[in-house]
Amino acid sequence: MQQTLNIGLIGTGYMGKAHAIALHAAPRVFTLPALPVCDLLAETDAALAASRASELGFARATGDWRELVADPAIDVVDICAPNFLHESMALAAIAAGKHVYSEKPLALTTASAERMTVAAERAGVKTLVGFNYIRNPATQLAREIIASGEIGELVHFRGRHNEDYLADPELPHNWRTRRDTAGSGALGDVGSHILNMAEYLTGQSITTVCGDLQTLIRQRPLPDGSGMGEVENDDQAQAMLHFSQGLMGNIETSRIASGRKMGLAYCVTGTHGALVFDQERMNELQLYRHEGPKGRRGFSTLLIGPEHTDYAAFSPAPGHGLGYNDQKIIEVRDLIEGILGQRELYPDFRQACRINRLIDAIERSHRERCWIGID
Amino acid sequence: MQQTLNIGLIGTGYMGKAHAIALHAAPRVFTLPALPVCDLLAETDAALAASRASELGFARATGDWRELVADPAIDVVDICAPNFLHESMALAAIAAGKHVYSEKPLALTTASAERMTVAAERAGVKTLVGFNYIRNPATQLAREIIASGEIGELVHFRGRHNEDYLADPELPHNWRTRRDTAGSGALGDVGSHILNMAEYLTGQSITTVCGDLQTLIRQRPLPDGSGMGEVENDDQAQAMLHFSQGLMGNIETSRIASGRKMGLAYCVTGTHGALVFDQERMNELQLYRHEGPKGRRGFSTLLIGPEHTDYAAFSPAPGHGLGYNDQKIIEVRDLIEGILGQRELYPDFRQACRINRLIDAIERSHRERCWIGID
Amino acid sequence: MQQTLNIGLIGTGYMGKAHAIALHAAPRVFTLPALPVCDLLAETDAALAASRASELGFARATGDWRELVADPAIDVVDICAPNFLHESMALAAIAAGKHVYSEKPLALTTASAERMTVAAERAGVKTLVGFNYIRNPATQLAREIIASGEIGELVHFRGRHNEDYLADPELPHNWRTRRDTAGSGALGDVGSHILNMAEYLTGQSITTVCGDLQTLIRQRPLPDGSGMGEVENDDQAQAMLHFSQGLMGNIETSRIASGRKMGLAYCVTGTHGALVFDQERMNELQLYRHEGPKGRRGFSTLLIGPEHTDYAAFSPAPGHGLGYNDQKIIEVRDLIEGILGQRELYPDFRQACRINRLIDAIERSHRERCWIGID
Amino acid sequence: MQQTLNIGLIGTGYMGKAHAIALHAAPRVFTLPALPVCDLLAETDAALAASRASELGFARATGDWRELVADPAIDVVDICAPNFLHESMALAAIAAGKHVYSEKPLALTTASAERMTVAAERAGVKTLVGFNYIRNPATQLAREIIASGEIGELVHFRGRHNEDYLADPELPHNWRTRRDTAGSGALGDVGSHILNMAEYLTGQSITTVCGDLQTLIRQRPLPDGSGMGEVENDDQAQAMLHFSQGLMGNIETSRIASGRKMGLAYCVTGTHGALVFDQERMNELQLYRHEGPKGRRGFSTLLIGPEHTDYAAFSPAPGHGLGYNDQKIIEVRDLIEGILGQRELYPDFRQACRINRLIDAIERSHRERCWIGID
Repeated sequence: MQQTLNIGLIGTGYMGKAHAIALHAAPRVFTLPALPVCDLLAETDAALAASRASELGFARATGDWRELVADPAIDVVDICAPNFLHESMALAAIAAGKHVYSEKPLALTTASAERMTVAAERAGVKTLVGFNYIRNPATQLAREIIASGEIGELVHFRGRHNEDYLADPELPHNWRTRRDTAGSGALGDVGSHILNMAEYLTGQSITTVCGDLQTLIRQRPLPDGSGMGEVENDDQAQAMLHFSQGLMGNIETSRIASGRKMGLAYCVTGTHGALVFDQERMNELQLYRHEGPKGRRGFSTLLIGPEHTDYAAFSPAPGHGLGYNDQKIIEVRDLIEGILGQRELYPDFRQACRINRLIDAIERSHRERCWIGID
Repeated sequence: MQQTLNIGLIGTGYMGKAHAIALHAAPRVFTLPALPVCDLLAETDAALAASRASELGFARATGDWRELVADPAIDVVDICAPNFLHESMALAAIAAGKHVYSEKPLALTTASAERMTVAAERAGVKTLVGFNYIRNPATQLAREIIASGEIGELVHFRGRHNEDYLADPELPHNWRTRRDTAGSGALGDVGSHILNMAEYLTGQSITTVCGDLQTLIRQRPLPDGSGMGEVENDDQAQAMLHFSQGLMGNIETSRIASGRKMGLAYCVTGTHGALVFDQERMNELQLYRHEGPKGRRGFSTLLIGPEHTDYAAFSPAPGHGLGYNDQKIIEVRDLIEGILGQRELYPDFRQACRINRLIDAIERSHRERCWIGID
Repeated sequence: MQQTLNIGLIGTGYMGKAHAIALHAAPRVFTLPALPVCDLLAETDAALAASRASELGFARATGDWRELVADPAIDVVDICAPNFLHESMALAAIAAGKHVYSEKPLALTTASAERMTVAAERAGVKTLVGFNYIRNPATQLAREIIASGEIGELVHFRGRHNEDYLADPELPHNWRTRRDTAGSGALGDVGSHILNMAEYLTGQSITTVCGDLQTLIRQRPLPDGSGMGEVENDDQAQAMLHFSQGLMGNIETSRIASGRKMGLAYCVTGTHGALVFDQERMNELQLYRHEGPKGRRGFSTLLIGPEHTDYAAFSPAPGHGLGYNDQKIIEVRDLIEGILGQRELYPDFRQACRINRLIDAIERSHRERCWIGID
Repeated sequence: MQQTLNIGLIGTGYMGKAHAIALHAAPRVFTLPALPVCDLLAETDAALAASRASELGFARATGDWRELVADPAIDVVDICAPNFLHESMALAAIAAGKHVYSEKPLALTTASAERMTVAAERAGVKTLVGFNYIRNPATQLAREIIASGEIGELVHFRGRHNEDYLADPELPHNWRTRRDTAGSGALGDVGSHILNMAEYLTGQSITTVCGDLQTLIRQRPLPDGSGMGEVENDDQAQAMLHFSQGLMGNIETSRIASGRKMGLAYCVTGTHGALVFDQERMNELQLYRHEGPKGRRGFSTLLIGPEHTDYAAFSPAPGHGLGYNDQKIIEVRDLIEGILGQRELYPDFRQACRINRLIDAIERSHRERCWIGID
């Protein structure tokens, strides 16, 4: 009889649906050590919860997330609610002894993230934060190539996560543009992905940052039609970075970068080669290596296939392509294996808290116009 | 209480697993008019069937596909068994009054496909054949652009489906290289996709063909180590085509095209523009239009997003990317809606039979070195 | 004292200017065995000739090309006049014992091209025809890779030369759309490039063809405003080809291919790899090879540099890029070296005549709806 | 009788040859208001000068550049000698009342560049510095699109000029790696191009910088085999920038960026669109605009053609491609027209001196770990 893990999902917006799809599909794609059971779903009221549970394939529903967190049948609390609620939900779940699977960013502030981290570690529960882009087989391949030394010692990291979801100045003030509900702006929302990616790929910690932020669209229409409201966080940011083994690099992030839809991209240069990746073409990795005759060197487009980590479970045929939701399926596999002790969970709350600390440092560096070291 | 459709799956190789993933995920992605229930799975023996049922999330298992076909609880027979078994399975399912969802190619010969088509139409059951690439939102967009006249009257169609899965001459003789198990070679296996695509995209029927086939690797090692065996079907093929409204075009197909992994690609040219697509970059479509100042014209890379058909159900954010299995999820949605009468099923057995007829005509044209008309 | 070759240029349109630029630049780019001297220029009248000679840097001018051909100081007659004049000019030049450098296509018909070829060979003069795209270092590299066996035995050739210079149906009837001035349409104009390229790259002769032509825009406005005139040659063509060593392939050509500006492109597949090239990105060649671990194989983008044939003379730094006119500079170097006996001239009149023969065969195949062998 | 300008060329290495090619070709490509005459060439000794004059098509030769500068027949002194000689040559030429056309970087230090600028302005001679990449029609188009407001108000500038010409640590210590002969490293050599490009494209001045430099390969073999020598300037650099109208951006530059051959690239984002360019594909510009239905928006690849500035003189047909040397031909046209008073010369010594000042500020910012304002 296969072991099961009962999942309690809080929130059914964009990410909640993606989690539900992945929870249902993961056991069909991978052979899992325990079966995730879509057991209980919480939404803001009971009727909505019932309707969403039916749609998303959950057995039970509740209009009160506290009920879900307290439910003895639940093994894992899966938090897809708005960011400003992450802390209270996670602390309650941890207090109830549940494992926590939370969407990113973990918290609005480093202090908040630290409270969550300390609580989880004291309680001994497992945690995972949904920085899903690191699960993409193309990016896993990039990390393996770097770790194996195939491109030599790292020389430079360039990363960006630019989108244009708020490029239109007519888009109203919303929770994303307010400090108390979102914390930082583009930097926390999408920039957190590229900061996490930088450390994941290079295997080095960021030790010093020099940041620069801008709010270009300083006012947006208030949703209630009562005029314009001040935007309270950054539209775009850039930072120069130094890493623990001397590597130098930079990142960019934006929510107003016209034309960029899923603009997470990186270029990692080493002494013997380089890697280039763009999530808008998520199934390919460009690899350059100093080897062979000069006239035959060039960037190769590696199409991801069954030779690469985690692809074969989706298809035995190369080049057939994974999609965004497939990254979440891999994430769910990692969650299950991590809870069962078969794999280290990464990024857990501790690492996600580190990302918050990096964001804080970049913001402080911007205010003080100087380089800031990370403890 | 939601309506259900009990699915009986025969065969759990590459495609069987893809179907299982899609059947589980589809109700979470789309709001379906009936819930597909993964009820019964058939494999070549009972033990394998039981083990695969557990892995693929089916409630029951059997070592005899005839049992599955006869099971009164089953509403839809889903055939993912080897191609040479399609006919007997489908005929049995039709005889039992089941709807049939079959992988492509429908049959080894046109005569076989015709028997299946006639049987299904007489029995009044619904049929769908898994030419999944036409479900890709990028390709649906291409069809909509063509149908709307955005690129004018069609002038030329160029298509190819090239892969390299048999490029290595050391790969042994197998069912794919034998006439009695595979029918034609590259032409039937992957070429059938691009023939179906040609008619799907242009909305025109192919009326005349001129074909040319080659078997380059004429012998392959026999799997039992007893020497070499003659390859019995084509490694690559090309054909020139004329369509019902005067359009001219050509196709290529190969299983030995070094470097091509998922090389389905097309270029459709019209009097006012053109479209270019490559399934290896399945989330983008290149569009050129004669409009605006000359100095601002160029091929635009349209990244698929929620503005395009069937994408929003997977993600509200543009450019996040669908994968191969997501095409199958759309196909399952079409199957369910089709069976419930909410959508025309395409390609059904009749259209799939047409593809067989085109393959036959191309082969005959090759033998007779002349153009052949399609009835 | 360096040897010189006096050049007499006939015609100063598009190609005449390109020749003049190349004749002036070639001695600065390459170390030539003889200096081409821009001596005499012929245009349709004396005044135009004088003005163009001044612009294009020629010492003398004449309004009568027969004078140029007869001028004892002239060593090489460079024909950039309209295609229908090529024969009379070349025959006169040959009769006067001049070497002939002619733009392509050599002649309107095979019979005409044969007369020119026979005359030149009897007279023992040297000839070169301006199929300049084969001079591009990226294409020279492709040929070297093929010849060296780096991609194994050739398996398939796909080529196209599509442009859209007549896509607009409002463009008037002109010399290009008339049989008596242009011979065939797209096939002769741009298709001749891809036919020549096919033989140049593969090192094999085309032995059998099956052609298909269309005139989509059947009438165009007469330039004198007197109504519409019938277009007399093809807007687009396609053909399947067999080569002397068994290679199979196909070509396409068009003058109405919306969006294509310089759409000469090819894909050559071999048993151990493949090459992909597009003249719109003329400084790069895509190379795939079966070698190394499967997970590291992909098409490499080779940026042309000083390691590749003929690049270093333009720049010692890789990736800096050559342009269209640089191909003509290489062609002039080849002309000079060929006349001096240091290099075989290719394509000479004999090979260009072969291209005419291929065009004839494709047209005949189209009319007769069958495969046609080339003698 | 056409006016002439006698050119005296000093130095015949990489850039000297490129200038010679351009000087010979420019009058054939463009209709110039004065004819540049390749009159006198100076090299390090008389024999070399004579030989190079013959190869590069100069009438006279000298082994002493001071003789060239003093020669009354010379109108323009064209300096292609090593960077550390620029100042003395330019000052002597200016003193002799000559116009000066100098390769970049203008000088090793800002102080030196200022002396040259002041001298030229006092003497009233014309100056031009060879930042040739801004002449590329694709980049001229980018500037026009920006200036016209087609992509709205500028929001972000990202630029890089990365190459790998010193990526190999076995390459010896040479003049480029020494302070006294090269000044700064990658930053001055290739970084100067992207700094100039940033101001050229945006039409804004850089006002504040925050720089970061690294020397990764700290020692290189001494050319005389006597061991290793300390590298004295940067291998790579990055900087964040603010511009005069509030624009924010960043640049990167490197001489050890594995895989990059001609890696000048930029992305300019505005409120209504964006531009992306890579000099390795120098004939195309990517343009995105917020306009038309969302489902039809994407980056368009504009192939440069006769509709764009300065292309038609090279070819009347679009997409045929310019090369590196063609940029120099445009630069020579600008030089001639500028000297004749028909065009503003840009970048002149004053602007090139500004680039030196930016380099100094980036270096100082790196040392002081803070933002530095530009006067």
